[in-house]
Amino acid sequence: MPEPRPTVAVVGASGIVGREAVQILEERGVPRENLRLYGSTRSAGRRVRYGEAEIEIRHVDTIGNDHHDFALLCADADVAHTIRTALHDMDTVLIDNSSAYRMDPSVPLVVPEINGNLLTTTTRLIANPNCSTIMMLAAIEPLRRALGVNGITATTYQAVSGAGAAGLEELIDQTAAVTAGESRTPTVFPVSCGWNVFEHESARDPETGFSGEESKMVAESRRIWNDPGLNVLPTCVRVPVERAHAQSLNVDLDEPTTVGDVRALLEDAPWVRVWPEGRLLTPRDAAGHDEVFVGRVRMDPASDGRRVLLWVCCDQVRKGAALNAVQIMEEMLETASC
Amino acid sequence: MPEPRPTVAVVGASGIVGREAVQILEERGVPRENLRLYGSTRSAGRRVRYGEAEIEIRHVDTIGNDHHDFALLCADADVAHTIRTALHDMDTVLIDNSSAYRMDPSVPLVVPEINGNLLTTTTRLIANPNCSTIMMLAAIEPLRRALGVNGITATTYQAVSGAGAAGLEELIDQTAAVTAGESRTPTVFPVSCGWNVFEHESARDPETGFSGEESKMVAESRRIWNDPGLNVLPTCVRVPVERAHAQSLNVDLDEPTTVGDVRALLEDAPWVRVWPEGRLLTPRDAAGHDEVFVGRVRMDPASDGRRVLLWVCCDQVRKGAALNAVQIMEEMLETASC
Repeated sequence: MPEPRPTVAVVGASGIVGREAVQILEERGVPRENLRLYGSTRSAGRRVRYGEAEIEIRHVDTIGNDHHDFALLCADADVAHTIRTALHDMDTVLIDNSSAYRMDPSVPLVVPEINGNLLTTTTRLIANPNCSTIMMLAAIEPLRRALGVNGITATTYQAVSGAGAAGLEELIDQTAAVTAGESRTPTVFPVSCGWNVFEHESARDPETGFSGEESKMVAESRRIWNDPGLNVLPTCVRVPVERAHAQSLNVDLDEPTTVGDVRALLEDAPWVRVWPEGRLLTPRDAAGHDEVFVGRVRMDPASDGRRVLLWVCCDQVRKGAALNAVQIMEEMLETASC
Repeated sequence: MPEPRPTVAVVGASGIVGREAVQILEERGVPRENLRLYGSTRSAGRRVRYGEAEIEIRHVDTIGNDHHDFALLCADADVAHTIRTALHDMDTVLIDNSSAYRMDPSVPLVVPEINGNLLTTTTRLIANPNCSTIMMLAAIEPLRRALGVNGITATTYQAVSGAGAAGLEELIDQTAAVTAGESRTPTVFPVSCGWNVFEHESARDPETGFSGEESKMVAESRRIWNDPGLNVLPTCVRVPVERAHAQSLNVDLDEPTTVGDVRALLEDAPWVRVWPEGRLLTPRDAAGHDEVFVGRVRMDPASDGRRVLLWVCCDQVRKGAALNAVQIMEEMLETASC
């Protein structure tokens, strides 16, 4: 992390993304005295391990009492709006993981590897995209740069931890139920996630039938790639997996290519890990890692080399959320020091 | 079941598909004395409950000692070849669930609702398609008849029981391992199926990278629909689900349509169960049922009504295998009685 060391607030520090953000900041060597953690009434007062020491979670209502260079908002859209108002005159850079500002044209929506150039020394609010959008675009970005992309069909296999710690607890509980031959009413997901798969639980658009998650993937991809006419056709599905999403991506290219060239382009991107041919890539392989993993690469035989099929796995808590936010902060610091 | 009541042999009667076939024959009212069960050395001598009584599984090597009108082969390709030779002069109609004869141009590959017309009074060997092919084509058939279909992108969520009873046992064992925080080497699947998803385990074609399951979906669909140029683009994935496959199907139509018209066309097909709008369809809803279930129906907004998206769930042991075989037998009996 470049000097001078910034002061950082993590809001929602006891949530699954907030906890991951704290861990990444520790890995990055942010000193304990530069970090302040905030949470709701429920989590305020709890202590979080940080290196050899502990940090107490403060109540989020007190965030305006101190100055922070950055605030990583790992909570919902309501909290994001509240914090923005509270810190309005504090010159804090807000990096928001919620959907509150993602479609606000005055707020950059950033995946650093793709459009980090949008960040300037005067940027004070940045939106972090949805996890499914981040992993999809990060995996395809090397192909877009070299070959052009005009369409994506995305079918997802999304981990329950995308719904937070409660989703994970429900997986444990529903798995115990189904293996015991019992039935228990779920509370986080609309149907049981034990040995079952189902459409993403976000509300369907009554007109198009697309879920909220799917609509985000369409709208956010167009914004991030600055390509309002981009065809994105997503189908989002939850699977009984703890952590890390998988996606089957069929990518329509402007220029024809080959499997070998696609693998070479992906291998040149430092944020992509290309899985060895002949080994099966699973979400479990990607869990806990920073990179977007790309497994099997195939060509649609009917496409004359213009449609490539990718199997992508990514830790959606990490690169899909907390890590991307920290990377935005790092990009801002570099911009400021240039 | 039409008169006269046929004599039926079930080969592989202790396997997951064989057991299901026996159950369906019982539901259909086939008298115990008309049914003979066969199995390998491992299962010969076991007794299978049939209504109030039991039937002993005979050794498959003795199948030529009796006459059978039909033999439902619920075993692998090697067994199918052996039985065909053994029953060559017996005038038995063989209905084979293995892949042995699916691509043999002299053997009809039949989904009764689609191409039952291929069955004649002289047909003596019929191939049952792969489960993923059956459910995909059965779901789309009403649209093909009314609107024409020129392409399918299929992404699957396949239950472990597609790999037989051993797959199911491995799901139980691997789930127990992962929930206990342990790691155990899998024996049926190449990677753990406990809280994990992975590419279908059938061998990849070294040239195209498509798995055996995917290649079957392409080749069998072209045969069944008699459409050698049909574009089928499958991605087959195993998920930790006990029974019933799910598929996300993007279907390219010759004629434009609407969501309402698609639902109406599907509702007119007696083998399709259209799920109520606003309720989530899962594989668990389809398990144990005969129909192919179709849940959410969406249009690709960029397709001018020419690409429809379907979420399909189907009991792959039943309609995907055992039931389809019994339906072929019933179609043969009707053909004979006409």
